[in-house]
Amino acid sequence: MIRLSCDYHEGCHPKVMERLVATNMEQTVGYGMDPYCREAAEAIRTAFDCPDAAVHFLVGGTQANTTVIASALRPYEGVLCAHTGHINTHETGAIESSGHKCLTLPGKDGRITASQVSVASALQADDEHTVRPGMVYISLSTELGTVYNLSQLMDLHYTCRQHGMYLFIDGARLGYALAAPTGDLTPADIAKYCDVFTVGGTKVGALFGEAVVIVNPELSSRFRYMIKQRGGLLAKGRLLGVQFSALMEDGLYFEIGRKAVEQAMRIRTALLDKGIPLLVDSPTNQLFPIFSDEQAEALEEDFDLSFFERMDESHAALRVCTSWATPDEYVDKFIEAIQNL
Amino acid sequence: MIRLSCDYHEGCHPKVMERLVATNMEQTVGYGMDPYCREAAEAIRTAFDCPDAAVHFLVGGTQANTTVIASALRPYEGVLCAHTGHINTHETGAIESSGHKCLTLPGKDGRITASQVSVASALQADDEHTVRPGMVYISLSTELGTVYNLSQLMDLHYTCRQHGMYLFIDGARLGYALAAPTGDLTPADIAKYCDVFTVGGTKVGALFGEAVVIVNPELSSRFRYMIKQRGGLLAKGRLLGVQFSALMEDGLYFEIGRKAVEQAMRIRTALLDKGIPLLVDSPTNQLFPIFSDEQAEALEEDFDLSFFERMDESHAALRVCTSWATPDEYVDKFIEAIQNL
Amino acid sequence: MIRLSCDYHEGCHPKVMERLVATNMEQTVGYGMDPYCREAAEAIRTAFDCPDAAVHFLVGGTQANTTVIASALRPYEGVLCAHTGHINTHETGAIESSGHKCLTLPGKDGRITASQVSVASALQADDEHTVRPGMVYISLSTELGTVYNLSQLMDLHYTCRQHGMYLFIDGARLGYALAAPTGDLTPADIAKYCDVFTVGGTKVGALFGEAVVIVNPELSSRFRYMIKQRGGLLAKGRLLGVQFSALMEDGLYFEIGRKAVEQAMRIRTALLDKGIPLLVDSPTNQLFPIFSDEQAEALEEDFDLSFFERMDESHAALRVCTSWATPDEYVDKFIEAIQNL
Amino acid sequence: MIRLSCDYHEGCHPKVMERLVATNMEQTVGYGMDPYCREAAEAIRTAFDCPDAAVHFLVGGTQANTTVIASALRPYEGVLCAHTGHINTHETGAIESSGHKCLTLPGKDGRITASQVSVASALQADDEHTVRPGMVYISLSTELGTVYNLSQLMDLHYTCRQHGMYLFIDGARLGYALAAPTGDLTPADIAKYCDVFTVGGTKVGALFGEAVVIVNPELSSRFRYMIKQRGGLLAKGRLLGVQFSALMEDGLYFEIGRKAVEQAMRIRTALLDKGIPLLVDSPTNQLFPIFSDEQAEALEEDFDLSFFERMDESHAALRVCTSWATPDEYVDKFIEAIQNL
Repeated sequence: MIRLSCDYHEGCHPKVMERLVATNMEQTVGYGMDPYCREAAEAIRTAFDCPDAAVHFLVGGTQANTTVIASALRPYEGVLCAHTGHINTHETGAIESSGHKCLTLPGKDGRITASQVSVASALQADDEHTVRPGMVYISLSTELGTVYNLSQLMDLHYTCRQHGMYLFIDGARLGYALAAPTGDLTPADIAKYCDVFTVGGTKVGALFGEAVVIVNPELSSRFRYMIKQRGGLLAKGRLLGVQFSALMEDGLYFEIGRKAVEQAMRIRTALLDKGIPLLVDSPTNQLFPIFSDEQAEALEEDFDLSFFERMDESHAALRVCTSWATPDEYVDKFIEAIQNL
Repeated sequence: MIRLSCDYHEGCHPKVMERLVATNMEQTVGYGMDPYCREAAEAIRTAFDCPDAAVHFLVGGTQANTTVIASALRPYEGVLCAHTGHINTHETGAIESSGHKCLTLPGKDGRITASQVSVASALQADDEHTVRPGMVYISLSTELGTVYNLSQLMDLHYTCRQHGMYLFIDGARLGYALAAPTGDLTPADIAKYCDVFTVGGTKVGALFGEAVVIVNPELSSRFRYMIKQRGGLLAKGRLLGVQFSALMEDGLYFEIGRKAVEQAMRIRTALLDKGIPLLVDSPTNQLFPIFSDEQAEALEEDFDLSFFERMDESHAALRVCTSWATPDEYVDKFIEAIQNL
Repeated sequence: MIRLSCDYHEGCHPKVMERLVATNMEQTVGYGMDPYCREAAEAIRTAFDCPDAAVHFLVGGTQANTTVIASALRPYEGVLCAHTGHINTHETGAIESSGHKCLTLPGKDGRITASQVSVASALQADDEHTVRPGMVYISLSTELGTVYNLSQLMDLHYTCRQHGMYLFIDGARLGYALAAPTGDLTPADIAKYCDVFTVGGTKVGALFGEAVVIVNPELSSRFRYMIKQRGGLLAKGRLLGVQFSALMEDGLYFEIGRKAVEQAMRIRTALLDKGIPLLVDSPTNQLFPIFSDEQAEALEEDFDLSFFERMDESHAALRVCTSWATPDEYVDKFIEAIQNL
Repeated sequence: MIRLSCDYHEGCHPKVMERLVATNMEQTVGYGMDPYCREAAEAIRTAFDCPDAAVHFLVGGTQANTTVIASALRPYEGVLCAHTGHINTHETGAIESSGHKCLTLPGKDGRITASQVSVASALQADDEHTVRPGMVYISLSTELGTVYNLSQLMDLHYTCRQHGMYLFIDGARLGYALAAPTGDLTPADIAKYCDVFTVGGTKVGALFGEAVVIVNPELSSRFRYMIKQRGGLLAKGRLLGVQFSALMEDGLYFEIGRKAVEQAMRIRTALLDKGIPLLVDSPTNQLFPIFSDEQAEALEEDFDLSFFERMDESHAALRVCTSWATPDEYVDKFIEAIQNL
C-alpha cells in the first residue's frame, strides 16, 4: 500500500534525523533557551529577511494557532477566516476553547479577499453586542492547496492595518506554498506583509515542530508565558532547534518543498491528460481530483488516498498529497494507475 | 560543566533513538492510530496490570495534566493539590486557563494526606458559592522527591471515592518513584488505586512523551477530542508509540529509573556523611541539600545545579538531579566535590 | 417620539411593580431560596405542565443562554443554531467565551429544520478533529419573529434524541411566540419537546428576568453552581420570584403576549394594505417591513424604529416591535402614518 | 424572626423605589445608554472627585469582579488577593472560569499589605513557568469588616505602580467602609489611589447594582464589550441609572452607610460590655462575635445570624450585620438579648 493521503506519513528527513542522533547525548538547558534554538531562530530570520522578528518553536499546528490567536486577541475579539480554514474546521474548537470566535467568510477555493475582510469589519462597526474582528487568519498554502499571490497578500495586509486588525499566516505548508509554480511570493514577502506567521516543520521534513515568527513587536510581549500556559513549551526544546537548524541549512526546507510540488504537478498533468476534473486547481502538493466511485475503488487497491467531499451520487473529490518524503517511484506508479483507469 | 540541575538535559535513551531511526521512513497513519501506539498501549496495560485501561500518548506534562483535568471536571469543579504541586506552581496557570481552580492544601514535603482531603471536602459541603472539589491531584514522585506509600495511596483512593472525587496521579517521574528504596508501591498498585495516571517519558528516557492511563472508564469518553482541542494530538503520533514501546520492552523504563535512584542515593550518603542537611529526605532522583552560599559557589564552578529555596542569609536549598542519562563518572566527580567542600 | 424599535423600552407591567412595592421591605433569605421563588417556580411548572422540572431564575438572556449551554456541553462540544440565532450574532461571543463553538446552519427566516440538524450531525460522525454537536439551540419566537409549529418542534426533538443532542429553546419572547395566530404550540408542548427552555420576562412584562426550566434531569445537576459562577445568582433573588409570580398569576404573561401580537397583526394588515413588502411574514410582535428610504425617513420623524438590513440602494428592512407596554393609541398613530406614506 | 445575618434581606431604600415607580412607564433606549445612566455616572464622578473616570453599571458583584479582572489581565496573569477575598472564596471560581488564577496572600483580618504584594511580585520575577501577578484585588470593607486606612491604600497603590500591576478595589460595601469611625479615607482617596473600583448598590440601598468606576484609562478600552460578553449588560439598563441617581442624590448613599455603621457600633459596645470576644474588631456594619454554642442557641430563637467559623468545640464566630434597612428597634432588641445572655 502506497500512502498518498497526507503529508505526515513518515518521520523526518534523513539530514534532520542525522542531526538529532549526533546531538542526542549532549546536555543543554531546557525549554528552548539552548544554542540550537538560538541558531535556528537566527537562520529563520535570515531566510525570511526579518532580522528583528521574535522566533519561537512549538510542537504542533493546533497548538501554535491557538497560542498565537489567544495571545493577540482581547477576550471579546474574534478571528476572521475562510470557512474552510483549519482553525474553523479541524481543530475541535481549540480557538473557541480559548474564548475566541472564528468569524467565517465564504471562500470557494480556501482563500479570502481583502474586500471580504473590509466588509466584515465595516459591518461590525463598534457594536458591543457583536464580536470585534481583531485578526485575520489565512493559511498558506490553504487547505485546498491554493496560494495567495503578492498583490492579494498586500491587499490583505493593508486592509488589516486600516481596520486595526492583525494578519496571521498559518504556514503549516509554507514550504510547499513557496514552491507553487504559479506563485510570486518570496520568503521575505511573507514576513513583510503580515504580523505573525508560522513555518511548518511537521509536514515539511521535521518529526514535528512549527516555528512562530512574530514580526509585529506588539505581539511579542511575554509570548513564552502563552506557550507555557497552553502546554507548548517543550522541556527538551532543543529538539526543535536542532530540527529547524537542519532544515534551514543550505535551504533544505525550500528545496524539499520544491521537489514535492514538482511531483504533484506531474500527477496533476496526468490527471488532466486523463480528463479527470479537479475540485480546485491547486499549484502545490495537495491535489483534489474528482473521481468516479469506480475509479476511486480501483485506485484504492494500491494507494491510500483521502476522502475529501462527495460531489454527487457517483463522484467524490479525493485528496492526493505528495511530500518531502515521496519517492519518485511512488509518483510513477500512481501516474501509471491513473493512465490505466 | 556537568549538569545535574534537572532530569531533561539529554535527548533519549540509545535504545529509544535506535528504534526511531529504524522506523523513520516507514509510512503509517497519523494521530496515534498506528500499530506502534497500539503496541505501546498494550505494553503499558501489561506493565501496570490494568488490562482494561485506555492509554493515550501526549507530548508534554503540562499538556497532559490540563487535558486530564479539563476532561474530568465540570465547569464549577476544582482540583485539590499540594500547594507545591506542579499544576499549582509551574504551569503558568494552565489549569485555571481551562477554567478550573487549584484548591491548595499545605504540605511540608510535597505530599498531602487523606485527612486533609477529607476535611477540605467536608468544608465545601454542597455550597454553590464555592468551588466543588472534583478531583485530587498528587504527583509521584512529588516535586520534592518524596513518594507515597501503599497505605497512604489507598487512603487517598478511598477518601476520593467516598466524596465523589477522582484521584489523578501525575507520574512525570513515575519511573523514579517506583524505584524509591523506602517505597512499597508496585506498578499494579498505581493503576489499582487511582482513576487516571500518567507515565512520564520526558524525564525517564524518552525524547518527550507522557502516557495517560485512564483506569476509570467514566473518564475515557471522547478523550481524544480533548487531546486534539488542547493541542496535544501529535500528527506523527507513532513517534510516541515507538518511544514507549522501546521503554516498556524488557522493563527498560523501570531499570533506568532504578539506576538513577541508586546514583542519587550514593550522593545522598555523601551529603549526609559530609554533614550537609537536606530540606527533605527524598528517596528518589531529586535531592535537596542545604548548602552554605560558599559551598554552593564552590560546587557551581564545575556543576550546574538548580536553586530551590533560600533558607537564611547564607544558606539555600539547591536541587540535585540524577537521571537515566547520568554517567557514573558524573556522580563520582560530584561526590568527590562534596567531600572536598 | 413614539418608540417601536424594541420590546424593552419601558419598565414593568403595573401588576409586577405593585407586587415589588408591596414586598419591598420584607426580609427574606437571599439567592433565590425564598418563598417567592418557590411559588413562581411552582406556577411555571403548572403553566407549562412539567411538574418535575427544575426552575431557576436569572437576570438576563445572554447570561441564561451561556449558563445553560456551558452547563450542558462537554468542552469539545458545540451548539447547532441558525446563523441568525441570538447566541451567534448578538451576544459578543459569550458562548465562545465559555469555550463552545456555535455551529451555524443557514436559515432564511430564523428557523432551522430537523433535516439540517440531522445532516450536520451525520457529517461530524465521531471525528475528534471536529467539534461534536452536543446541543441544538432554537429561539421561539426567532430573531425574525417566526415560530416553529408543533410538528417542526417534534421533529427537532426526535432528531436530537436520535443523535444524542439536547434541544434548548430560548424563550426570550416566548409570551409572544405562544400568541402567534398561525401557531399551534401550547405551553405544555414546549416543555414536552425539549430538554431545557427559558421563559423570558425582560421582554414580556418584567423589569428583568429569565426563568430557566430544565425538563431533562440530566441537565439539572448542580445548576446553581453554574449560575453563581457565571455571575447570575442575584443576591436579592426574590425580586425574580416576585416578578414571575405576578406574571404567572391568572395567566397575565400569556395575556399580555396575546395583546401585543394582536397589535402587531393590526400593523401587519396596514402594511400589506399599503403594499409594503415584508422581509419575512412574522406572526408575532416583531415585524420586518421593507420601506423605501423616503418612507423610512417620513416615519422616523415621529417613530423610533430599528434598522435591520439594507435591501438595495434605496430600500431597507426595519424592525417594528409592539410589546406588553404598547398603548393602542401608539398603534393607531403608526397605522395612520403608514396609510399616509 | 429578625434577620441580621446579611445586608441584603430587604428590597431597596424607599427613595430608590419611589424613583423606579415614577419612571416605570417611560420609554428609554436600552443597555445603559439612557439619560438616567448618564446622570448617575456624572453624580458618581462628582461624589468621588474623578471627573474623567468611565462609569459603568452592572447588576451584581461576582459579575462586576469577573468582568473587571478578565478585562484587565492578559491570559497568563493572575490577581493577588487575601485568601479571604470574595473572589477567592465565594464566587465559585468565577475568576478561574475566565482563565485567571487567584494568587492568595495570607491575611489575618481580611487585609493584605504592600510588602506582601511586593514580595509576591519579586518572587515571580519574569519566570514564564509561573503566573504573572497583573492586578491586586482588595475589598473595602473586607469580608471581615475591616478597612484600609489612607497610608495603607497609598502604599498598595505605589507598590502596584512599581511592579506594573493594577489595583482594584471591590467596593461591594463601600458605603459602610467610608463610614468606619476609625477610618480616614474619603471618597476622593478611593478614586485617587486605585485603577478601578466598584461602588456597591446591592448591599447599600439598591435593589441590585454595582457601579464600576474606571479611573485608569488603560482599563477602559471597549469595556462595554466585556460587560456584554459576560452577561452583564442589562437590557433595561436605566434601572441601574435610576437607582444610583437616587442613591447619589444629597449623599443618600453615604448617609445610609453611616447610619448602619452607627447601629453596628452600638451592638459592638454591647458585646464588649458583655465580655463577648470578637474574632476581629470590625469598625463597619459586619461584626464577628465569638459566642458559646449555648449563647448562639439562645440568640437564634429570635434572630437569624450567620455562622462564620468554628473556634473550638463549644464556641463559634457568628456574623452579625446591620444595613441601610435595619430599624433601630431591631438593634435595641438585639442589644437587649445580648445583655440577657
